[in-house]
Amino acid sequence: MTVKLALIGAGRIANVHADAITANPDATLVAVTDPCAEAAEKLATRTGARVATPEDIAADEEIDGVLICTPTSTHADLIETFAKAGKHIFCEKPVDLDLARAQQVVTIAQTAGVKLMLGFNRRYDPNFAAARQAITDGKIGAVEMVVITSRDPGAPDLSYARTSGGIFRDMTIHDLDMARFMLGEEPVSVSAHASVLVKQELADIGDFDSVNVILETASGKQAVITNSRRATYGYDQRVEVHGSAGVVDVSNFHENTVRIGNADGFATAPLMNFFMTRYVPSYAGEMKEFVACIKEDRAPATTGEDGVVALRIANACVASVRDGKRVKI
Amino acid sequence: MTVKLALIGAGRIANVHADAITANPDATLVAVTDPCAEAAEKLATRTGARVATPEDIAADEEIDGVLICTPTSTHADLIETFAKAGKHIFCEKPVDLDLARAQQVVTIAQTAGVKLMLGFNRRYDPNFAAARQAITDGKIGAVEMVVITSRDPGAPDLSYARTSGGIFRDMTIHDLDMARFMLGEEPVSVSAHASVLVKQELADIGDFDSVNVILETASGKQAVITNSRRATYGYDQRVEVHGSAGVVDVSNFHENTVRIGNADGFATAPLMNFFMTRYVPSYAGEMKEFVACIKEDRAPATTGEDGVVALRIANACVASVRDGKRVKI
Amino acid sequence: MTVKLALIGAGRIANVHADAITANPDATLVAVTDPCAEAAEKLATRTGARVATPEDIAADEEIDGVLICTPTSTHADLIETFAKAGKHIFCEKPVDLDLARAQQVVTIAQTAGVKLMLGFNRRYDPNFAAARQAITDGKIGAVEMVVITSRDPGAPDLSYARTSGGIFRDMTIHDLDMARFMLGEEPVSVSAHASVLVKQELADIGDFDSVNVILETASGKQAVITNSRRATYGYDQRVEVHGSAGVVDVSNFHENTVRIGNADGFATAPLMNFFMTRYVPSYAGEMKEFVACIKEDRAPATTGEDGVVALRIANACVASVRDGKRVKI
Amino acid sequence: MTVKLALIGAGRIANVHADAITANPDATLVAVTDPCAEAAEKLATRTGARVATPEDIAADEEIDGVLICTPTSTHADLIETFAKAGKHIFCEKPVDLDLARAQQVVTIAQTAGVKLMLGFNRRYDPNFAAARQAITDGKIGAVEMVVITSRDPGAPDLSYARTSGGIFRDMTIHDLDMARFMLGEEPVSVSAHASVLVKQELADIGDFDSVNVILETASGKQAVITNSRRATYGYDQRVEVHGSAGVVDVSNFHENTVRIGNADGFATAPLMNFFMTRYVPSYAGEMKEFVACIKEDRAPATTGEDGVVALRIANACVASVRDGKRVKI
Repeated sequence: MTVKLALIGAGRIANVHADAITANPDATLVAVTDPCAEAAEKLATRTGARVATPEDIAADEEIDGVLICTPTSTHADLIETFAKAGKHIFCEKPVDLDLARAQQVVTIAQTAGVKLMLGFNRRYDPNFAAARQAITDGKIGAVEMVVITSRDPGAPDLSYARTSGGIFRDMTIHDLDMARFMLGEEPVSVSAHASVLVKQELADIGDFDSVNVILETASGKQAVITNSRRATYGYDQRVEVHGSAGVVDVSNFHENTVRIGNADGFATAPLMNFFMTRYVPSYAGEMKEFVACIKEDRAPATTGEDGVVALRIANACVASVRDGKRVKI
Repeated sequence: MTVKLALIGAGRIANVHADAITANPDATLVAVTDPCAEAAEKLATRTGARVATPEDIAADEEIDGVLICTPTSTHADLIETFAKAGKHIFCEKPVDLDLARAQQVVTIAQTAGVKLMLGFNRRYDPNFAAARQAITDGKIGAVEMVVITSRDPGAPDLSYARTSGGIFRDMTIHDLDMARFMLGEEPVSVSAHASVLVKQELADIGDFDSVNVILETASGKQAVITNSRRATYGYDQRVEVHGSAGVVDVSNFHENTVRIGNADGFATAPLMNFFMTRYVPSYAGEMKEFVACIKEDRAPATTGEDGVVALRIANACVASVRDGKRVKI
Repeated sequence: MTVKLALIGAGRIANVHADAITANPDATLVAVTDPCAEAAEKLATRTGARVATPEDIAADEEIDGVLICTPTSTHADLIETFAKAGKHIFCEKPVDLDLARAQQVVTIAQTAGVKLMLGFNRRYDPNFAAARQAITDGKIGAVEMVVITSRDPGAPDLSYARTSGGIFRDMTIHDLDMARFMLGEEPVSVSAHASVLVKQELADIGDFDSVNVILETASGKQAVITNSRRATYGYDQRVEVHGSAGVVDVSNFHENTVRIGNADGFATAPLMNFFMTRYVPSYAGEMKEFVACIKEDRAPATTGEDGVVALRIANACVASVRDGKRVKI
Repeated sequence: MTVKLALIGAGRIANVHADAITANPDATLVAVTDPCAEAAEKLATRTGARVATPEDIAADEEIDGVLICTPTSTHADLIETFAKAGKHIFCEKPVDLDLARAQQVVTIAQTAGVKLMLGFNRRYDPNFAAARQAITDGKIGAVEMVVITSRDPGAPDLSYARTSGGIFRDMTIHDLDMARFMLGEEPVSVSAHASVLVKQELADIGDFDSVNVILETASGKQAVITNSRRATYGYDQRVEVHGSAGVVDVSNFHENTVRIGNADGFATAPLMNFFMTRYVPSYAGEMKEFVACIKEDRAPATTGEDGVVALRIANACVASVRDGKRVKI
């Protein structure tokens, strides 16, 4: 069986997924739709897919699943539409910035009996996946503490920041999901601090660019997340997990392995500077998972429910900063 | 001028200081006192110092300064005694577990016109000192975030833990001082989480072994401290400081530089496993500073006041855990 | 102008080049030929090229260049054929195992006025290229010594080893070219040692699996090459270049960035284990160069002449081992 | 039993040994002699030893052993003198620059029944010792290749170079001993290249500053040694040993563990720049060995014979460069 897929959206990340589908022998990209006809046409030509309307795709019985790669504000409605059309759904995070609405469409997908996979791509990064596997294999004993560093090379445009839901719902949410992935136990309380140190305009719209979060589970396991919209030295993505019998950590990728030494010391390259370069293998991995869970008729590793939980924790972070106290989740 | 010093206490750390004094061409160790006559005798023999009583030392006009290396509960009284005797004082941290009493003896030393240097030895570690120097030299621009990792190889004996004041006042206090050192601005609020994951008996005496702390300054700079009484892989001591123009970090020392590779990958040695091995150069550095500040008649780089401030923040950490909220300092 | 190319051969490396052509916006793969019809058909289908005979390709005026990806013994005749047909030629190394024949076809290509680029792919690896650039930029001053390590994960099949020309002409030749690339001056003498430590059957056919080579230039610069057909820990590819003002080195790629630590120390992944994985970017780079040198009508960075020179040095290595002395090149 | 030792020479390295003896609970430094009365006096005062003449020391029945820390030209005569006086002898390398004379005094020491330990200190470096131990423990299988890098921060003064015996006998000799230590089998042939790239005046006295050596054993194991009198980035001391089942390597020590990152990449400290700083633990280790072999009445790990063998190989290196051929040892 070849899984037949359609792309809802033809922007940057849609093109990344298109390549992953083309490279996957178990899947074919059959259709693409986008309000921008030119973008849709270009992607279609390059991949051999046809350009279609969302209605065509929903009605096409041959199509097994869709990938929602549109702006956040459209996610929930599109999930609802395609779930009711019986299509399996891969959706970029978040489901919706409104928790109730997010929960609602997750339930709709469940009722419709379709799979709803959320694009928490980092779980599919070979490095983080290998770290998690080491934990599952008992290499570090019982997990005690998780430390996650995620620093973006730069602050987002204000136009984007205004609709993204803020740093906790847009950026930290990836790390909240990673914390859940590594902890293996749900956080029950959170303390967060947030300030504006990188781009003062963010303060005017009530957003932040520098945050630290402590999560705690019922059994006392803790996770720390450090986020900044500044990383002069490249895209900084690290995880360390401490257990009763050892530690596992994942470090960064440099642009190259060249080192220059002289009397001043040694100089090496900055880190890979762009999330799409750093995370290329994770996008291939998540598409593999989406295709496989359709073929094997099983739940995906990251579900709509995971999106809802991460959003709930992100909301708790916002409340903790606002109220200056530890917040129950 | 050769600075003449006396040791109050002849235990493990007193012996470390004795070696640093012997190696310092500007100082001489002239006397040592300890309730345990054997320990005092042994240290005296090996260094050419004489065994004395505290009263002799206080009365000896030839002695410029004393090093207080006795149990915490005796620090304040000894500082008071020797300050009134006109001796310059180096004291192991903390001044006292009671903040009011600590502040009181700091004032007494000031009034007496003697120097009171506190043993926050890590500031004198050549690595942390070089990192701070890089910041001062403008290498990373304005400081924005500090991340401090400090993980002990094992939990303390209960007998020690009962009198140490708890993990925040005993262990985290070093990192609170390091945070102040690196931030270059005083923290004004703190959130802390704490749990018992390593040694359950600590829960019975109200102590913790796994803590995370977020500090924030008035301008929004933040510091994160991660502490654990467990580090299976050796003594873990790291600092990273992120600024507007760069980052500086200090990593760990391994036991050796040997690496073995085969089809399973590469294996390297664990970290140096003992604080006295890891921090040998810092003890030499702090003794150099004590001698120099006497010779040059200037304030030491780490004063009794620094001890009071760090203790105040440690107390705020305790309150934050207890009350589940952010605490103003 | 889009450069139109044909593949002579449809094996493993031909498929790698086909992908690089497809990804290159300045080039199109129009035809492929291979004695194995199935392989040609498969590659053609997947890339949109047509299956053709060598004669068709030589006669097709639309085709600008060919890529010779066939067994070594056929290289020289194919170069001659396509040079006379006026096609630009990219050829996998070596041109021919016979130095006179290699020189002859290089001259034929020159006379025919076509470009003959040799597949010394490592020069196009972004890491080695950046190291060379650092040298050109004066970062290490005048080059003094080059140290090249190249260790294969395993010994070749005997069937391959019998026709490869031996370790010096098959494996070391890459490092000889790298040494020339980094030295920036021609070696004039060479000493080599060779032994069989990995696969005893190689001794029976007069080949070796463990060799060390010292090259020296007229001005006394030296290069050392260490080769082995064994690297239990992955594919080991390193270069260091020492100059009067500094050093530049290129280190290896590990399979991932995961590290596990415990009381035994730290464990990291083995090196990437396969030359095609390690050198993926270099194959893209060399195809870019081939297309560019046709478009811009200039000489390629690695010519047939470079292949002849490297082969001459490889022959000198063989002679040095045989005669037990330093050999002039 | 406390081993009683005397120092013949009171210069820089003698002071290093004096410290190692003082720190060793099994040994006492009882006497020191030096033609420079002031140096002897200073060392004696600082350690509690007495100043003596060589004759006194030879005649003093209480003294178990002597450490010869004088210029090379005096080593052989002093060994002869103290061997005949029945003293165990630790001697800095080399025994003598003349192979026959070196062999002669080694035989004299053997006949006299005294231990003659040679100061190949690097074998006692904890890192190289741990690497050797890993080999002995079977961690890398059968040894196949050894690669040794040894690069000095700068070229020696001409006055020293004139009497040192040249780079092979003065500097490479340490690496020749290391090669023997790691190979576990005697080299039977050697090829060497040598040139002058760092300090042209060395050419005038027939010496070199840049050399590469290949050693080969009877079974085909090979060792490569790379030496230079230039290392702009600090004192470069590395070893890698490749075996049938793995590799073990020893890397360098940096001055500190500070790293600064920004858009240009990351900068780390240069290497420790002085052999006495880098090799402090090896000097303590060799003194421990000397004391232990006297106490336990057993042969030292590095004997006079080891010095003779290393010198013989160094002489073969010189011959290989001169004659342009592989030389049998």
